[in-house]
Amino acid sequence: MPSMRVVLVELKYEGNVGAIARSMRNFDVEDLVLVNPPPIGAEARQRAMHGLSILESSRTAEDLDTALQGADLVIGTSGVDTRSEKRFARISVRPEELASRIEGMGGTAALLFGREDYGLYEKEILRCDLLVTIPSSPDYPILNVSHAATIVLYECFKARSPTRRARRASGIEKEKLHEALDALLEATEYPSYKRERTKVMFRRLVGRAVPSKWEFHALMGVLQRATKRIKRLEGARP
Amino acid sequence: MPSMRVVLVELKYEGNVGAIARSMRNFDVEDLVLVNPPPIGAEARQRAMHGLSILESSRTAEDLDTALQGADLVIGTSGVDTRSEKRFARISVRPEELASRIEGMGGTAALLFGREDYGLYEKEILRCDLLVTIPSSPDYPILNVSHAATIVLYECFKARSPTRRARRASGIEKEKLHEALDALLEATEYPSYKRERTKVMFRRLVGRAVPSKWEFHALMGVLQRATKRIKRLEGARP
Repeated sequence: MPSMRVVLVELKYEGNVGAIARSMRNFDVEDLVLVNPPPIGAEARQRAMHGLSILESSRTAEDLDTALQGADLVIGTSGVDTRSEKRFARISVRPEELASRIEGMGGTAALLFGREDYGLYEKEILRCDLLVTIPSSPDYPILNVSHAATIVLYECFKARSPTRRARRASGIEKEKLHEALDALLEATEYPSYKRERTKVMFRRLVGRAVPSKWEFHALMGVLQRATKRIKRLEGARP
Repeated sequence: MPSMRVVLVELKYEGNVGAIARSMRNFDVEDLVLVNPPPIGAEARQRAMHGLSILESSRTAEDLDTALQGADLVIGTSGVDTRSEKRFARISVRPEELASRIEGMGGTAALLFGREDYGLYEKEILRCDLLVTIPSSPDYPILNVSHAATIVLYECFKARSPTRRARRASGIEKEKLHEALDALLEATEYPSYKRERTKVMFRRLVGRAVPSKWEFHALMGVLQRATKRIKRLEGARP
């Protein structure tokens, strides 16, 4: 994954700058450059929360060229996608495509976000190596700029962080669970014509739920206890 | 895809409510319920932009139960994920997993977002069928609430497809299933100190598996039969 830089181009509301700094902290991106920003005051700092240090160490650039110094890849964001060949400059990829495309890269990638009202100007769009558009309602595809930044940063974060999972029940444990169900069906004298499909149903359900080891033991406990109880009561029958 | 409802639980800042209404418009979700909201004024309306009609047609609920009326699946969001088996109630799925799991469902799914500072309280978390956590920096996993809502709505929007799947169990059916487990635990004299967590485990497991109507009836059949059997045997006890 390249090192990421967020470049905010002529945002008007300091609150959005702060909100984006927070999001950067959430998704482990630290390099923030502001092109011709609004005055940064209390609101931006408040909304930055733990991203305050990112806001405070951000650099201000007079123009886009200065902001892009040292960037190996320039990625623009646009709410307006197109398939029209006449507007080829606006043909774009989706955020998760962007993330998987840059995943293997090194260097520095600059992510550009434009003005709240006009987004990026045409000449800024033309400066980009890659355009990304967030899939959204055709009725209203214009996201708040901090929401758009959050989605793109989130997709890039997902692509570079390996999935952590709870320990899952192993195949052997799962088989034991199915045996426990079997024993319960037997103990309850479950109608034999229903038995097979009930077992398959249970197998599918457990398969989809992907239980953790703990959940598996808890579930098994319920089944075994019911079976034991039935057997004990039957043993005591007159 | 189920019809989606966004439930905001005791948010403090009207700006966040407005920002979420905008995001809902971006991702074609219209049903907004506010539990004990802050006064909604000019700032919320301004930030809602084209989501203003969603904000204006939102309903206010006094408590969570009222907000959840008619919901077939309750989805909570939590910034704190865990792999600890002791805190199993916080075991969660990622947003794209959530989206793919509910994709084939009908009915109504309620998406809960909690307070800016505390999120959802433990008892609210326990009420959920499914928990979702957004992957983010371990150093600062707490997203702004409108950012969190935007990511979850975006993932659900991406996954939305016109194909219909098997009918899913409704909320009422699921409650009956949980009652049936309860009755079985009672009949087996399941240790009371384990009972609550076993019930929550079961709720989560069923929530993740998203059972069809048929699976639900089959599962219920097993539980009820075991309970009946135990009771009958107990009645026959010398």
